[in-house]
Amino acid sequence: MKIVSLLSGGMDSSTLAASLKHEGHEVSTIGVYYGQSHDRELAFAERSAAMLEIPFTNVNLSSLQAVFAGSCLTDKNVALPEGRYDEESMKATVVPNRNMILLSVAIAKAISIKADAVAYAAHAGDHTIYPDCRESFADIMNRAAKECDWHKLDLVRPFITQTKEDIVVRAHEIEFNLANTWSCYAGGDVHCGRCGTCIERREAFHLASLRIPDIVDPTQYSSKAPSITEMVANDWKLTD
Amino acid sequence: MKIVSLLSGGMDSSTLAASLKHEGHEVSTIGVYYGQSHDRELAFAERSAAMLEIPFTNVNLSSLQAVFAGSCLTDKNVALPEGRYDEESMKATVVPNRNMILLSVAIAKAISIKADAVAYAAHAGDHTIYPDCRESFADIMNRAAKECDWHKLDLVRPFITQTKEDIVVRAHEIEFNLANTWSCYAGGDVHCGRCGTCIERREAFHLASLRIPDIVDPTQYSSKAPSITEMVANDWKLTD
Repeated sequence: MKIVSLLSGGMDSSTLAASLKHEGHEVSTIGVYYGQSHDRELAFAERSAAMLEIPFTNVNLSSLQAVFAGSCLTDKNVALPEGRYDEESMKATVVPNRNMILLSVAIAKAISIKADAVAYAAHAGDHTIYPDCRESFADIMNRAAKECDWHKLDLVRPFITQTKEDIVVRAHEIEFNLANTWSCYAGGDVHCGRCGTCIERREAFHLASLRIPDIVDPTQYSSKAPSITEMVANDWKLTD
Repeated sequence: MKIVSLLSGGMDSSTLAASLKHEGHEVSTIGVYYGQSHDRELAFAERSAAMLEIPFTNVNLSSLQAVFAGSCLTDKNVALPEGRYDEESMKATVVPNRNMILLSVAIAKAISIKADAVAYAAHAGDHTIYPDCRESFADIMNRAAKECDWHKLDLVRPFITQTKEDIVVRAHEIEFNLANTWSCYAGGDVHCGRCGTCIERREAFHLASLRIPDIVDPTQYSSKAPSITEMVANDWKLTD
């Protein structure tokens, strides 16, 4: 199949592109800069696509900042929450309608190149607190993808039944190097190890390494990050 | 109601913003530059919003050109068809998935400012050849607008039962000056009077003037435009 795969540069979407390529699909990737302060992820996206020898289109939609307000990912005046996500802290990381915008751009690309499908790395751990991660929303967008043009295409979520830990295992199976992926929302040069998405990354590698001892987390974390032992002892909550 | 209204600078969306304001709604407008060669329309959008004393957000998504291909509106290598639209000539003017992208950006804006609705100027004359102008697509997007965030909003199409002629009459009723709107796709300094959208504009003014003789078309057309008498005699087809 000819597939356009959304690629943020994070571990989920990067492993998805690698996995689709591994399965023999003709994969093109697309990444979107929408004003996220962690725009470093897109450099990782480009690097992974180059490693996988698949095309990467980087679409700069930075002007979208004019319509986004109140998300800590695009507005420096909103504090980035630290520690394991709970309902309130996660709400600060919502970018209004981001998923519909990303999917609509990927669908446009897929129509342009007559692809069979758009793939994205929604997974079982996606928090249902994000309204645009819900099953009901995915169903509607899938219908929209079939109605918006003469060229029909499917929206597919190959990882929808997988956890983030399963995704680490999948990357290991197909020898895709997760060192070339970026998760942190804090905007620094190394992963902070403290924000909600860093904690999920560390937990995923830890759980995967319990299943497959060969798996090690290759990520460089800031010196302010707690140790894995501390994190495990504190049930992945920050203590200070 | 607090409404975000998509404003391209054309006669339909400009009259819609004016009409919503006239009805007493709190209207914000949003226009998107997606690489259209007729970007002059956005200067008209800005001018109309200023005249109406309503906010206008101009979102520059010019990088979308990287995902659009094959449309004469965004690709200088594709010729702009002249004359009254037919199925084939109109297909060249389709920008892949444009409406989903525009709506998704307007929905993001509406969520950000907690608006009650997003309005757009789909009308009875919208050609069903455009897949993303079909009723089935509008229904799906309306459902998507209710599922993509905690904040629920409606997508509304106040002109959906109106023709372009009716829209000219509506502008006249509320004393909205259509001289400050732009239709032409040819990218020149004045309306070419020959492309499909110019011909629809001229026809709409002509039919409206038969109903209300006070209505005159204030548009300046190129010297290469045929006369109205010729157009009427030729059933709005170009003869040369």
